[in-house]
Amino acid sequence: MIASRHNPAVRRVRALTHKRARDQTGLYLAEGIRLVAQALAVGAPVQEVIVAPELLRSDFARTLVERSQTAGMPILIVTPDVFLSFSVRERAQGLAAIVRQRWAGLAEMRPQRDARWVALWEPQDPGNLGAILRTSDAVGASGVILLGASTDPHDPTAVRASMGAIFSQRLVRASFAEFTRWASEQGCAVVGAAGGAAMDYRTYHYTAPFALLMGSEQHGLTAEQQAACDALVRIPMVGGSDSLNLAVATSVILYEAFNQLGAPVGRQHEFARA
Amino acid sequence: MIASRHNPAVRRVRALTHKRARDQTGLYLAEGIRLVAQALAVGAPVQEVIVAPELLRSDFARTLVERSQTAGMPILIVTPDVFLSFSVRERAQGLAAIVRQRWAGLAEMRPQRDARWVALWEPQDPGNLGAILRTSDAVGASGVILLGASTDPHDPTAVRASMGAIFSQRLVRASFAEFTRWASEQGCAVVGAAGGAAMDYRTYHYTAPFALLMGSEQHGLTAEQQAACDALVRIPMVGGSDSLNLAVATSVILYEAFNQLGAPVGRQHEFARA
Repeated sequence: MIASRHNPAVRRVRALTHKRARDQTGLYLAEGIRLVAQALAVGAPVQEVIVAPELLRSDFARTLVERSQTAGMPILIVTPDVFLSFSVRERAQGLAAIVRQRWAGLAEMRPQRDARWVALWEPQDPGNLGAILRTSDAVGASGVILLGASTDPHDPTAVRASMGAIFSQRLVRASFAEFTRWASEQGCAVVGAAGGAAMDYRTYHYTAPFALLMGSEQHGLTAEQQAACDALVRIPMVGGSDSLNLAVATSVILYEAFNQLGAPVGRQHEFARA
Repeated sequence: MIASRHNPAVRRVRALTHKRARDQTGLYLAEGIRLVAQALAVGAPVQEVIVAPELLRSDFARTLVERSQTAGMPILIVTPDVFLSFSVRERAQGLAAIVRQRWAGLAEMRPQRDARWVALWEPQDPGNLGAILRTSDAVGASGVILLGASTDPHDPTAVRASMGAIFSQRLVRASFAEFTRWASEQGCAVVGAAGGAAMDYRTYHYTAPFALLMGSEQHGLTAEQQAACDALVRIPMVGGSDSLNLAVATSVILYEAFNQLGAPVGRQHEFARA
């Protein structure tokens, strides 16, 4: 059991709370019993499990650790103090995992006939990005394409807000030009959201494959970006605000498309807690 | 110009970043040019404007301060260092306001025929609560009823995420029993969201007045709470997650009701940035 915060292995774990170390290593940290269980269940590339036995409060978590050990997974056993040195949760549950990032190249992406994608121009808030991954997973979308200087989907806040969707949604990084070229080549309609759009998001007839393109929290889409879209839709609003939260706006439109098109082929409806 | 972080007036401002001081004083802090402008524009009960002239980067903000001064509003002028001692924004804009909290009593609320409300059981995340206030405002709902041990809507994160909706949405605190009694007396249908519900949120026929009741992020609604609802709806999901982000789920259902019922009487559609 490692008891020192200065242990090199512990330093490496703690470094993953910073973007620079995540970029350098291609790894990230998934913290919490539920996230670690999901990572193992869906076969995410877990490199190491970190456990603070004295913090573990659940038999489920203990079984998870035992099974990982039996399966030959490297386990780092630490004291509560060491665990808290990298924990970002309010209440540390004593279980975390180091996972390898998986980025897909846009060129490899051949959207299937029924595919739906989310493309985000420079989202800044990791909580928003995580919530969007979660909704994207819920409506059976294929993944999220991050355009420009986006926040990091492997930021601990984004990972946590994704509620495990980080393990299943495909993640792609691209420039705006690469994205529109790809969409055009693949016959993937680009539907942009803009407050000035003439068409209500419910009037638009969604056809798959499509990519819903959302601008950044502060600036939305530029006029040039809007001009590059196959269609532009707006969400009606009657209050004093002139916009919705980015994750909310993305999700409201994604659910409209989901309601129009039904679940993608091969995905069954499952009904779960709202 | 106040240059000391230890000045009593500055201490009082800084204390408002903590719930205890907000509860004791009934005040809260709205930080940022946009929020202060909105507070003044809608006639929110602003007690004092705080300005760090050296941080102000916009003529709009300077005009705002001058007008407030002319109108006799108390102005606290501070150095950038003092301003940063209470700022919670990544980039301080040099403008903030102290605003008096306004809580409405449930007993005074007589929902109009066309009213829509949001009721939240013990929401824990101030960012979620702020985003819900923002959507609630956007669909013309009357306000948000906070049930049980809710997070504070006047937390700086919630205030900021509300994008000014904190100034216009009515805020009510109540116990669950008080809420259901009130809804029943007022003929206000309680529509609860639950993953186990038989009815798709789009199949339900929304009738105003209604209150959309959402459970907490972690636990949803209890069986007893679900039993107290007039109707239960679920949002379909096809991915690995068994729930959506609370602000997302609330907003998806609110927009369905909005789409079915149209804007409340007296509210015109305005089309703004999505």
